[in-house]
Order: sequence, then C-alpha cells, then structure tokens
Amino acid sequence: MRILVVYYSQTGNTKKMAEIVAQAAKSKETNVDLKEVGEVKAKDLLDYDGIIIGSPTYYGGMAWQIKQLIDESVELHGDLQGKIGGAFSSSANIGGGNETTILNILQTMLIHGMIVQGTSSGDHYGPVAIDSPDDRAAKQCKQLGQRVASLVRQLKKR
Amino acid sequence: MRILVVYYSQTGNTKKMAEIVAQAAKSKETNVDLKEVGEVKAKDLLDYDGIIIGSPTYYGGMAWQIKQLIDESVELHGDLQGKIGGAFSSSANIGGGNETTILNILQTMLIHGMIVQGTSSGDHYGPVAIDSPDDRAAKQCKQLGQRVASLVRQLKKR
Amino acid sequence: MRILVVYYSQTGNTKKMAEIVAQAAKSKETNVDLKEVGEVKAKDLLDYDGIIIGSPTYYGGMAWQIKQLIDESVELHGDLQGKIGGAFSSSANIGGGNETTILNILQTMLIHGMIVQGTSSGDHYGPVAIDSPDDRAAKQCKQLGQRVASLVRQLKKR
Amino acid sequence: MRILVVYYSQTGNTKKMAEIVAQAAKSKETNVDLKEVGEVKAKDLLDYDGIIIGSPTYYGGMAWQIKQLIDESVELHGDLQGKIGGAFSSSANIGGGNETTILNILQTMLIHGMIVQGTSSGDHYGPVAIDSPDDRAAKQCKQLGQRVASLVRQLKKR
Repeated sequence: MRILVVYYSQTGNTKKMAEIVAQAAKSKETNVDLKEVGEVKAKDLLDYDGIIIGSPTYYGGMAWQIKQLIDESVELHGDLQGKIGGAFSSSANIGGGNETTILNILQTMLIHGMIVQGTSSGDHYGPVAIDSPDDRAAKQCKQLGQRVASLVRQLKKR
Repeated sequence: MRILVVYYSQTGNTKKMAEIVAQAAKSKETNVDLKEVGEVKAKDLLDYDGIIIGSPTYYGGMAWQIKQLIDESVELHGDLQGKIGGAFSSSANIGGGNETTILNILQTMLIHGMIVQGTSSGDHYGPVAIDSPDDRAAKQCKQLGQRVASLVRQLKKR
Repeated sequence: MRILVVYYSQTGNTKKMAEIVAQAAKSKETNVDLKEVGEVKAKDLLDYDGIIIGSPTYYGGMAWQIKQLIDESVELHGDLQGKIGGAFSSSANIGGGNETTILNILQTMLIHGMIVQGTSSGDHYGPVAIDSPDDRAAKQCKQLGQRVASLVRQLKKR
Repeated sequence: MRILVVYYSQTGNTKKMAEIVAQAAKSKETNVDLKEVGEVKAKDLLDYDGIIIGSPTYYGGMAWQIKQLIDESVELHGDLQGKIGGAFSSSANIGGGNETTILNILQTMLIHGMIVQGTSSGDHYGPVAIDSPDDRAAKQCKQLGQRVASLVRQLKKR
C-alpha cells in the first residue's frame, strides 16, 4: 500500500509538517513517498492509495503551484475515485485563512471522488501550524499521517 | 450494518430526496432508517454505522433544526469517530447556497471524526435538487445512498 | 446611524468579544445596541444600518440559536440588501472550525444582499478568540467594530 | 472611477460572462477594463476602485492562473484594503463546485481587506453559468456588474 505526501513550501514550515506527516504514515504495510510539488506529475497520483497534500496558507487557499497540479489532474478525472485523502497547512496567524486552505484541498479531493476523514480531537479538518510547527502542530501532523495510513489499510486490504 | 437518513423538510422537496437516498442505501447487508429530524435524539446517532443528513438550503446553511441536533451531539463527542457520513440539499435556485449547505453538514461530520466521500461524476459534494428533485437530482440521490452503503460495507465488515 | 451587535454565548467568551466589538463601534455618529440573540426578533434587524453577529464555534458553524434568527429573517428577505455586516467567533482551539463559523455567518449576510469587508491585517474574515479573548483577539474585535462603523458612516451618510 | 474585470477562460464560457459583467459595470462615472488574466500584473490591481474576477470551476476552486495572480499580489498586501470586489464562475454542472469557486475568490478579497456584496435575488454569492451563459446567467452577470459599479460610486465618490 502506497501513500504520497506532496507539498509546496517556501519558508520551510510546510516542509517540516510534511516530514512529520510522512514519517507517521509509514508502517509495515504502507510505503510513503515525500515529494515537493514540482517533482510530481498528475499521472503519478494514480500510483497511490492515499494522497496527502500540504500547502502554506496563501490568501485563504492553496499555493497556485498545488492548484496547478490539481487542475492538471483533470486528465485522469474519475480514476482517483475511492482513494484516501488528507490535507494540512502552515499559516502566519490564527484566523488567517488556514481552515479555508485545508478545506480548499479537501474539496478538490471530494470532487475526485476521494474519501476524507476529520478528527474529533485537535485540528478537525487537518493540521494547522502557526509559523514553524510547534509541539501542538507536530502532534496534529502525526495524527493525520496515522489516520490516513489506518484508513488506507482498512480500505485497501484484500 | 445500520444507516440513518435524517432530514428536515418544510415543502416536501428534501423529504422526497431523503426517500430516494434511503431506498438506495438499502441492501442485503444494510438496514436503513428514514427519520424526520424531530424524531431523532443525539444519542440515537450512536446506533448507526452511516449517517446521511438532508436539509433545505436556508441562507447557505442547514436549517436550524438540523443544527440543533448537531449542537446537541456534543454530548457524545468523540464517539462518532470513524462513522460514514453524507449530505444532500434542496434549493430554490442554482448558485443559491446549496453547495455551502452540503459543505456545512460535511464539516460537522469531519469535526466528529467521521469519514465522507465525494463523487467524480455529478454533484460532487452531495446531491442538490432545484425545487422538487427532477430525474437528474434523483439519480444523484440514488448514487449517494449507494455510495454510503458501499463504504459502510467496506469499513464495517468484519 | 444604528449598529446591532447580537451574539449567543454559553461560557461568556463570545459575550466578552461582543462587548469589545460594540464598544469600538460606538462613535459620534453611530449608536450601538448590544443584545443576546434571545432578545432579538428577525424584524428588529430592519432598524439597523450595520449588523454584527457573534457565535461560539459549534461544529464549525454558528450556534443553532443564531441560525434560528437567520432562518426566521426570511420573512424580510430582500429588505436587508445594502446593509453592512460583520462576524466573530470564540473557539476551543486553533483549526477548530472558527473560520468556517465566521464564513457561515458572512455567507448568510451575502445571501441577504449585505455588504461585508475583511481585513488585510490579523484575523482576515473576522475576529477569532481561542477561549477567553486575549489581547490579540481583543485588538481584532476592536478593529471589527471600528471597521463596520466606518463603513456604515461612509455608505449611510447623506 | 475605474473597474477591472479579469478572467481566465479556456472554452469561452467565462469570457462571455466577463463581457456581460464588464458591459454592465460601465456608466458615466465608471471606466471598465476587461482583461484576460495573462494581461494583468499584480501591481495593476492598484489602479482600480473595483476588481471583479471570473474563473471556470476547476475542482471547486479558481483556475491556477487566477490563483497565481492573487498569490503574486502579496507584494502589495494591504494596499487593496477598501476596494470593492466581486466574482463569477462558469461550471459544467449544478452542484459542481461553482459556489465554492466564487467563495474562494471572495475569500482572497476579504483577506486583502476588500469589500464584497451578495445579492438577495438570484445567485447570491455571484453569477454561476452552467456551460455557456443562458438568459438566467446573463441576467445575474448584468446584476453583478451594476452592483459593483454602484458600490464603487457610493464609496469612492468625493
């Protein structure tokens, strides 16, 4: 079972989150690839059972580089149906558009027919870091990686 | 395996959608209860593997009667984690707040730690009817019922 | 020129925010009423040039008591067109649904044809307090009150 | 007083909407520029009192080309505060992510401190066309152009 963590990061904050998420998603049954968005082509998404996307909060939404990948994924529209998704974001401040950024990403996944899960404890839609991820944010990132991996195992096991 | 379809309806349009969704969610392995929101107490939600909520589009969100049920579900916060969710809405017009209504409902589910899935064909977040459900909307409702039932079977089978 | 600050508060956190917002919205030219949601009837909204709504973050949306007021305002649909709006929320945690709560409220205002403004500094959509409003949140509340009052003066002056 | 209508269009549907919006925004007191997104640099936004953005619905959000313009506008962050905004979208189907696309755009405007208005009649957040704009959608586009122009006149008149 394979999971992709793909991110865009300019200051390094989102990259740090991505590393924690990826580390936590690894298990006996799950291989995880961690990639910067420039290294990923739309058709690569087909190779994974779980796809987790991270972006800085730019005007309440994902960075255009991430959106470009998603727009280009229209060439495989329908083929991601049933895959598992997740999202995270780093942000300059509380109330700064971080929730809407995560929901932007999750909405693109729903439109692909993907499956997403929230959490009843902590950052409900997905992990938010204010600047560099502190202990609180790191814990949320770890939970996201584990949650997606767990769902991948449940749904993709034969 | 048990699925609940709970709705609020004043004109009957959302009720019609609920009936189609409920019918489609029924299968050999899934029992479905169809209930008006006034018949459901928060603790009843614990009895189901899948929960599908329908509401008219009222100012871009769910009817307060549905929100009351959700607010009261805080008494069992954490205990719905891992259940499957879905949402649908009837609306007076295109661009009339129907997508935001469905997303409002899905967001409450994510906050409960529930699992939701979109669709790559048709009404991506969940079925929308403009006034009474026409053939297009009925087809979307049918797909939602089947999709949730399928996910319940995949995840809850032992 | 008249401004209404209406809120629901169970723990007192949203009430504290409301008091700061209301105080800041007062000026030579603007009278401000501060009311708990139970004291306001839908038709009262007609009396104001600016309407600011505050709610705790309950499952990523406004409390049902606030939504009930908004649902009942359908009786005067169309008559709030051109009024100025704003929103704020208190929340248990970062990434806990506070932005979506504020946007839920702003969306109901847009559907009424109202005018809303964000801010380029701080809590962009509207003030968020994590638990009781600290200095950061209080400053955001003050800015919201001033911003709405300023827009009311610009638009309603004759 | 100057208004910019900027759009991205691949099939021509969003372009048609843009033309109707631009035509309707013109008046004795308002000059309107209609531009494809590739013709606009972030700093050009400073020259306008009103900015209206149109995008196809791509995975429930704006095209990455539009997002790139917005991300690059961070160089003038704070300087768009108080300008008037609006948004519209063309979409392949009802419930296909068109409302979330418009709200994505409006959210970026709120984060710039801009002022946006909905409408109580029709497409509340902004005009939605299903495929090529029909009479219904054209009427909504006309209303948006007039609404933004009217607000520009009210707020920018000296």
